[in-house]
Amino acid sequence: ADIRSAQDYAALAPHFMAPSHLAYISGGSGYGLSVAANVTAFEQWAIYPRLLRDVSHGHTRIRLAGDDYAHPFFLAPVAFHKLAHAGGEVETARAAQAIDTCMIASTQSACSLEDTAAAAGPQRWFQPYLLPQRAHTLDLLRRAEAAGYRAIVLTVDAPIQVANRRALAARFQLPSDVSAVNLRGYDTMPRFAGNGDGESRFFQGAMRGAPSWDDIRWVMSQTTLPVWVKGVLHPDDAVALRDAGVAGIAVSNHGGRSLDGAPSGLDVLPAIRAAVGADLPLMYDGGIQSGSDAFKALALGANAVAVGRLQLYALSVAGALGVAHMLKLLREELEICMAMAGCATISEINRGALLPQARRRD
Amino acid sequence: ADIRSAQDYAALAPHFMAPSHLAYISGGSGYGLSVAANVTAFEQWAIYPRLLRDVSHGHTRIRLAGDDYAHPFFLAPVAFHKLAHAGGEVETARAAQAIDTCMIASTQSACSLEDTAAAAGPQRWFQPYLLPQRAHTLDLLRRAEAAGYRAIVLTVDAPIQVANRRALAARFQLPSDVSAVNLRGYDTMPRFAGNGDGESRFFQGAMRGAPSWDDIRWVMSQTTLPVWVKGVLHPDDAVALRDAGVAGIAVSNHGGRSLDGAPSGLDVLPAIRAAVGADLPLMYDGGIQSGSDAFKALALGANAVAVGRLQLYALSVAGALGVAHMLKLLREELEICMAMAGCATISEINRGALLPQARRRD
Amino acid sequence: ADIRSAQDYAALAPHFMAPSHLAYISGGSGYGLSVAANVTAFEQWAIYPRLLRDVSHGHTRIRLAGDDYAHPFFLAPVAFHKLAHAGGEVETARAAQAIDTCMIASTQSACSLEDTAAAAGPQRWFQPYLLPQRAHTLDLLRRAEAAGYRAIVLTVDAPIQVANRRALAARFQLPSDVSAVNLRGYDTMPRFAGNGDGESRFFQGAMRGAPSWDDIRWVMSQTTLPVWVKGVLHPDDAVALRDAGVAGIAVSNHGGRSLDGAPSGLDVLPAIRAAVGADLPLMYDGGIQSGSDAFKALALGANAVAVGRLQLYALSVAGALGVAHMLKLLREELEICMAMAGCATISEINRGALLPQARRRD
Amino acid sequence: ADIRSAQDYAALAPHFMAPSHLAYISGGSGYGLSVAANVTAFEQWAIYPRLLRDVSHGHTRIRLAGDDYAHPFFLAPVAFHKLAHAGGEVETARAAQAIDTCMIASTQSACSLEDTAAAAGPQRWFQPYLLPQRAHTLDLLRRAEAAGYRAIVLTVDAPIQVANRRALAARFQLPSDVSAVNLRGYDTMPRFAGNGDGESRFFQGAMRGAPSWDDIRWVMSQTTLPVWVKGVLHPDDAVALRDAGVAGIAVSNHGGRSLDGAPSGLDVLPAIRAAVGADLPLMYDGGIQSGSDAFKALALGANAVAVGRLQLYALSVAGALGVAHMLKLLREELEICMAMAGCATISEINRGALLPQARRRD
Ligand SMILES: Cc1cc2nc3c(=O)[nH]c(=O)nc-3n(C[C@H](O)[C@H](O)[C@H](O)COP(=O)(O)O)c2cc1C
Ligand SMILES: Cc1cc2nc3c(=O)[nH]c(=O)nc-3n(C[C@H](O)[C@H](O)[C@H](O)COP(=O)(O)O)c2cc1C
Ligand SMILES: Cc1cc2nc3c(=O)[nH]c(=O)nc-3n(C[C@H](O)[C@H](O)[C@H](O)COP(=O)(O)O)c2cc1C
Ligand SMILES: Cc1cc2nc3c(=O)[nH]c(=O)nc-3n(C[C@H](O)[C@H](O)[C@H](O)COP(=O)(O)O)c2cc1C
Repeated sequence: ADIRSAQDYAALAPHFMAPSHLAYISGGSGYGLSVAANVTAFEQWAIYPRLLRDVSHGHTRIRLAGDDYAHPFFLAPVAFHKLAHAGGEVETARAAQAIDTCMIASTQSACSLEDTAAAAGPQRWFQPYLLPQRAHTLDLLRRAEAAGYRAIVLTVDAPIQVANRRALAARFQLPSDVSAVNLRGYDTMPRFAGNGDGESRFFQGAMRGAPSWDDIRWVMSQTTLPVWVKGVLHPDDAVALRDAGVAGIAVSNHGGRSLDGAPSGLDVLPAIRAAVGADLPLMYDGGIQSGSDAFKALALGANAVAVGRLQLYALSVAGALGVAHMLKLLREELEICMAMAGCATISEINRGALLPQARRRD
Repeated sequence: ADIRSAQDYAALAPHFMAPSHLAYISGGSGYGLSVAANVTAFEQWAIYPRLLRDVSHGHTRIRLAGDDYAHPFFLAPVAFHKLAHAGGEVETARAAQAIDTCMIASTQSACSLEDTAAAAGPQRWFQPYLLPQRAHTLDLLRRAEAAGYRAIVLTVDAPIQVANRRALAARFQLPSDVSAVNLRGYDTMPRFAGNGDGESRFFQGAMRGAPSWDDIRWVMSQTTLPVWVKGVLHPDDAVALRDAGVAGIAVSNHGGRSLDGAPSGLDVLPAIRAAVGADLPLMYDGGIQSGSDAFKALALGANAVAVGRLQLYALSVAGALGVAHMLKLLREELEICMAMAGCATISEINRGALLPQARRRD
Repeated sequence: ADIRSAQDYAALAPHFMAPSHLAYISGGSGYGLSVAANVTAFEQWAIYPRLLRDVSHGHTRIRLAGDDYAHPFFLAPVAFHKLAHAGGEVETARAAQAIDTCMIASTQSACSLEDTAAAAGPQRWFQPYLLPQRAHTLDLLRRAEAAGYRAIVLTVDAPIQVANRRALAARFQLPSDVSAVNLRGYDTMPRFAGNGDGESRFFQGAMRGAPSWDDIRWVMSQTTLPVWVKGVLHPDDAVALRDAGVAGIAVSNHGGRSLDGAPSGLDVLPAIRAAVGADLPLMYDGGIQSGSDAFKALALGANAVAVGRLQLYALSVAGALGVAHMLKLLREELEICMAMAGCATISEINRGALLPQARRRD
Repeated sequence: ADIRSAQDYAALAPHFMAPSHLAYISGGSGYGLSVAANVTAFEQWAIYPRLLRDVSHGHTRIRLAGDDYAHPFFLAPVAFHKLAHAGGEVETARAAQAIDTCMIASTQSACSLEDTAAAAGPQRWFQPYLLPQRAHTLDLLRRAEAAGYRAIVLTVDAPIQVANRRALAARFQLPSDVSAVNLRGYDTMPRFAGNGDGESRFFQGAMRGAPSWDDIRWVMSQTTLPVWVKGVLHPDDAVALRDAGVAGIAVSNHGGRSLDGAPSGLDVLPAIRAAVGADLPLMYDGGIQSGSDAFKALALGANAVAVGRLQLYALSVAGALGVAHMLKLLREELEICMAMAGCATISEINRGALLPQARRRD
């Protein structure tokens, strides 16, 4: 096949995936407003080429919270890789290892976190959700530590599940052979229903079990791993998290899958960077489809970027090979961008490399 | 059927309504510029999700001009519900009662204000138009008081009827069994024609009978009910009404059915709130299709919101049940928005919850 | 037929006109960029409805340079009305008389200026072009005076004819029975060709015969009629013309038929009004299709507006009756706008009546 | 055929060129974002017509770095004219001579630089690329000098070749009879591959051979011809080049064929002019399709403009005659613009001639 850019995997995926799986993966919550915002956000910036600079010593290496990474691309935590490929997360992990990429394994995976860890490279992080019972959350953390995950990414932006209308329209159902194996034996049902008189199933239901500041502090007290928090969009939340001592923040609108109508993380990234200062590591995700998308996010304040859907698309097209190839293309696209923009290293990429762009005609 | 969001009723209505009725209801005056503006206005704002906040004590209750309401959704006064359902306003009123919603009954209804009142819940308001003869207006007010309506909403933004081009194109006619029963026995023809030499049928015709400041003061002097004025779009008018002592103001462009080319109320809401100060109750209507639309209006200065067309769409699809379900969905959508935005109560929703949004690609 | 608004004549015209005539009339120069700009310009403004104002003494009368007009609508000078109707300018003039409208007769007419004058009402203006020989221009002026035209409108914005691509594509040709009868016996060919070595057929050709400041002063010295200049788009030109003593200025991009890529007059109107001060009469034309378009132009600084294409469209549909009806509709649409906006008189219409409008989705 | 404007050649070319050649020529790098930006950039400006100015002494002559040119249009260096016409660069050169246009001959041509020079007029420039071996570059320079080229244009904005997706999709291949004849006998392969461990084929590969400041200085030291640098988009680079003593700068995004996502040169032109001051000659290219495009570039700071694709389109349609005609049309379109805008000479064209334009509806 003719795959020239990472984005080509998105174009090819529909030929390799069941329509309802595709709808579930590519769709967002509600009417997809925030999914669309993730695309539009990148179109607002052009990249300045710079001339005659010596970048022959260039590289894409980054140091993030004390660790070295060959490049700033991470695999974002996405649920149930088996929807894209029978090999599931283990298949993806193989690609991550092959191409020196840090995979952030989701709790909601179709392969166990232990199996995934075994296949992944040394750089692997784990994304737990907070479970109704702390004992279960703790057990999950301990398993992650035991399996050699090097950081914890707490996702706190989805206290309520909002329907994905495209998935509903396509009558998506989790296939019988796909389930959240990591959670077996744990209590996962919300403790509160909020069905009492005058009670709301959101305020007095789901939200009573939602993550709290107390939970964040508790998790940090229970593990020596660095703890990131994922799903931040407001500068004040970012500052409060920095003050609470998190290792880093993932600026993300959950790929447009949480609150429909939330802004793109890219639109708030500069304000968040300004608010937290230069030192706090920020990872950006949402809509990354190319090396130049990554370049823009890095220029606007991120230290690293994570790709969500694109890994599943590549996985569906060609399994581990597809994911590895997609990551290779992303990295090369980023290198081209950097070289052309005269940036030899990731840290040289800054706001001055971008120009606000008059909106394209559609 | 698969109804997941309040807005789905708009998509379904065409299957349940005569095309000409649909055209009359969904259309606006002239070329529909202001109808379109009501939609576009909401797209200009994104909602900030906030993290880790405790909203388990959350609720949607509001206190408006001394009364308590379970939630900030009102049913806007819309004419002739029988166009959507044989049960007419009585059917809608049943839904309002069932779901604790305040219905604002229009003068121009196909069921009598008394019948509607009997079916509605304790929270019911009445929207009179000023009739050519004050005695008749007074009679209407007395009947509204007798029927237990708790507030008066004077609509003053439609002194001239502007043709609804979509209704005309669909050759809409009021069916023979639908008429303005409340007005039987009253004089409703304008007193002035403006056909004299050099006279305008607008300036010397319709406008000679148009509501005046004197009329507002007169109505307020004739009733002890709180008097709202509906149809305000200019901050100076809002201030003058506040100074005249109205109980509240409905910021509205009449669903795009009055002056074609009027702005969306949402676009002027912040300026109106700034002009009148924090205390004057403001109700917003125009284009509300979802809980997040309501959230945005509340964030921009409204204390409550009213839905117009959506109630007729739901009524056409499933009668009282449809309206009740639509209102339940709206409320839940609002709760989700609030919970995600970290707002436990309506009064916590403010401008800081919104981010101006780069325009979506069409 | 169902004609509800002036703009309907534009929609109907294609059924009543030869396609090539329509292409010639509706097209603009080049790629039609300035024609499109004339439409877009109006969409950038919303009109504030105002409440409870007494406009029962309202009217649309204006006083312009010492004369009274029943309303601010003028018929812009447009060439060859016979392309739209066999009766030509005489037919249009009848409508103008019937509906108390001032017609600005073009030099390039298919009926003689004398015949047109005889059919028109007392309010008629004449638009001469400057001819290669002053004696001929003078003769034209004398004839206009003799025929009772009350003002002179010098059009100076089209020194070079730019091809109308739509007309070319439709292979438009002037029919054999249509010709510029007013110009018989005059020299109309440019005196200069600019074909010498290193010469440009524009700079040393057309432009050598183009109107100059000297010409303007000369025309003013030759007639006691008020002299307007048509085709102004730059504030500095407007100021210079005011200082030269013109009676008024027509802010116009020639309906997008002169320089393709010129801005809409509406976009420059506020700057021109600010530059020339409150007293100089300004007439706006370009894209006027409705009463609310007129309202916007008046609010942005015009004292009157002229309609170009719309008169030919109405003429093609129903002759004099069509033009009269179209003008009646325009006036009523303006009255409705004024009434709704709380403006009893034209002079009450000002910038405060408008709100910049977020761009509509297409 | 009906060719009325230079741009018509773009519309006609698809009828005269093999689809894959057309794809190669019209496409840009990647997804064509920068190609699109080159078009959009012009739409953001309207041109002010000015009235009554005497431009009968007008002309389009410019003086650029000590030489006189009949008009500001240059033929940009574009590779392999034989893709458009069997006569190749020699055919284009004939047109350039006939119409007094300076051709900038590309190194990557299908005819030798000597043959092209022999056919071109006295005004001819040469665009070398820096070759892996300085001796070869020097030989190229010497040949250019010997062939009578009057200036050197070093293109430095394409150190990395980015795939043209449209060309790839159309399976474009260089025909067997088309090759880079100028380069015969030279080493053209990059010296570095960057395939070592941890090496990047961009940073340690292509970029190690990329042009450097040292190369620029070296070229300037080797020739007495004026040296321009082509491909500048950042003001800081422009200033540094000025300080290094270049004769002029070509502001260009390489027709959208280098970094996909680079801004249009037009969007950065004002900042570059402001940064380098009034004296440094700037040539603009990218998206020029008409005289008014040229006018806008000149108004925003350019001293001259170059056309890329349009010359190949015209060449494909009618050989030398087509190119000459296209250039004649461009010049006439510019003259019309200038005349209408009241600019008698190129130097009178400035920023004050433009008005930012509200975006057109699509
Ligand atoms: C199918 C799917 C499943 C996801 N599952 C999770 C998850 O389990 N945990 C999580 O934190 N984020 C999850 N996400 C969000 C991703 O981590 C990431 O924020 C998002 O996909 C980035 O946007 P992109 O897909 O446009 O790259 C999921 C996203 C998708 C598309
Ligand atoms: C069919 C229809 C009839 C209406 N009748 C009335 C009415 O009788 N009195 C009134 O004050 N407003 C009336 N309105 C306006 C509504 O009260 C409200 O302002 C508008 O519908 C809100 O916009 P929405 O329909 O987009 O929610 C009517 C609106 C519609 C659509
Ligand atoms: C077919 C046609 C012929 C015109 N002929 C003249 C003319 O002879 N003299 C003149 O000053 N303007 C002429 N104009 C321009 C009009 O006076 C006026 O500026 C323009 O039509 C206004 O724009 P509108 O057509 O959008 O209303 C002509 C316009 C059209 C459409
Ligand atoms: C087919 C093609 C080949 C080109 N080859 C060269 C080249 O060899 N050297 C160079 O400096 N620029 C080259 N360019 C870029 C042009 O010099 C110029 O920057 C660009 O075409 C201007 O944009 P336009 O095509 O929209 O006018 C090429 C452009 C095209 C379209």
